[in-house]
Amino acid sequence: MKLYDCAMAPNPRRARIFLAEKGIEVPKVEINIVDGENLGPAFLAINPRGLLPTLVLDDGTRFDEVMAICRYFEELYPWRPLLGRTPVERALVECLQRKAEFEGMIAGSEVFRNQHPKFVARSIPGGGAQPIPAIPGLVDRGRQTLARFFDWLEESLTASPWLVGEELTMADITAFCAIDFVAWVDIGIPDSHAATRRWHTRLAARPSASA
Amino acid sequence: MKLYDCAMAPNPRRARIFLAEKGIEVPKVEINIVDGENLGPAFLAINPRGLLPTLVLDDGTRFDEVMAICRYFEELYPWRPLLGRTPVERALVECLQRKAEFEGMIAGSEVFRNQHPKFVARSIPGGGAQPIPAIPGLVDRGRQTLARFFDWLEESLTASPWLVGEELTMADITAFCAIDFVAWVDIGIPDSHAATRRWHTRLAARPSASA
Repeated sequence: MKLYDCAMAPNPRRARIFLAEKGIEVPKVEINIVDGENLGPAFLAINPRGLLPTLVLDDGTRFDEVMAICRYFEELYPWRPLLGRTPVERALVECLQRKAEFEGMIAGSEVFRNQHPKFVARSIPGGGAQPIPAIPGLVDRGRQTLARFFDWLEESLTASPWLVGEELTMADITAFCAIDFVAWVDIGIPDSHAATRRWHTRLAARPSASA
Repeated sequence: MKLYDCAMAPNPRRARIFLAEKGIEVPKVEINIVDGENLGPAFLAINPRGLLPTLVLDDGTRFDEVMAICRYFEELYPWRPLLGRTPVERALVECLQRKAEFEGMIAGSEVFRNQHPKFVARSIPGGGAQPIPAIPGLVDRGRQTLARFFDWLEESLTASPWLVGEELTMADITAFCAIDFVAWVDIGIPDSHAATRRWHTRLAARPSASA
């Protein structure tokens, strides 16, 4: 198998941290998103949507969504679980990692892509080579959503050291990657959000953070 | 447990069809999204994001995402599986149901919410009572994404009668609900897309379609 990756991009990082926390090594191929290598003919032949990360199995089966890749490895290598230990925990991880994805990662992507000159025709990912114009109104909407995201995180992490259960799960990984991503557009954890700052420091100190 | 539902809304319908296909009955509470009952104090006390469907267990645990609800019931009642039968199938269902969600359901929601007078301050769901202004540019972007969605469906359903594996899965359910949803904004399966039309007719004839 091969994991098509992009070292600086936030979604591939979610998969890399997940794999590092489980101690799984997968051969990687680096693709440069900023320069548009993911929308060039060579990569579009592998994934017509141009999305990263993409996992291709030896028989050619392709998984082009972070959570599909993580779910696949969680089934193959159940230990150490990062998607929850019980049916209730697994459903909560699904809810909260998705909330972190929509209100953190995707809101951040709205702010970043709709104001960055390199993404002027790539307003959302997944369109392949078809131009998708930037929509400046999404920048403010994204910022508004991120403010909610930070308040929700602070409330959750004041109540408990991790977002779901007694230890790190994918919900934390997605929220952590979203925070480091939105730093690109100069949005950070508000100074008053002490619990979130402590949690971020703990996550940043784990070896997986540099995966 | 209680499933907070909205009979006419597309996301709750995904959960209802899923449950009907598995033969699971859950007590339901109807909430009117169009008139904003989901953003009133009574429902926001149950789910501060105002999202439907929401499943609340007897101990108060809340799942506010369709896929979390489906995954929970799939674990409790493995038969008949709708999220895939093997690790590879499950990862593919995740990829393709999510593709149907982003390029069908969410693109449709962009077209619908950003041009409908009742949603002028509800550009995206999940913001609770906070106003989120409509962004007219999303209407065209949503239409462009939906055109890609229909072409992808036709290509997939020409190759195989179902989106993943040998029978109906959640990927089909999400795509089917997205198509019926975008009919609200007068977008339909293109006349030339014969395989998609046959698949839609098959799905619409199942008893679950009226769940």
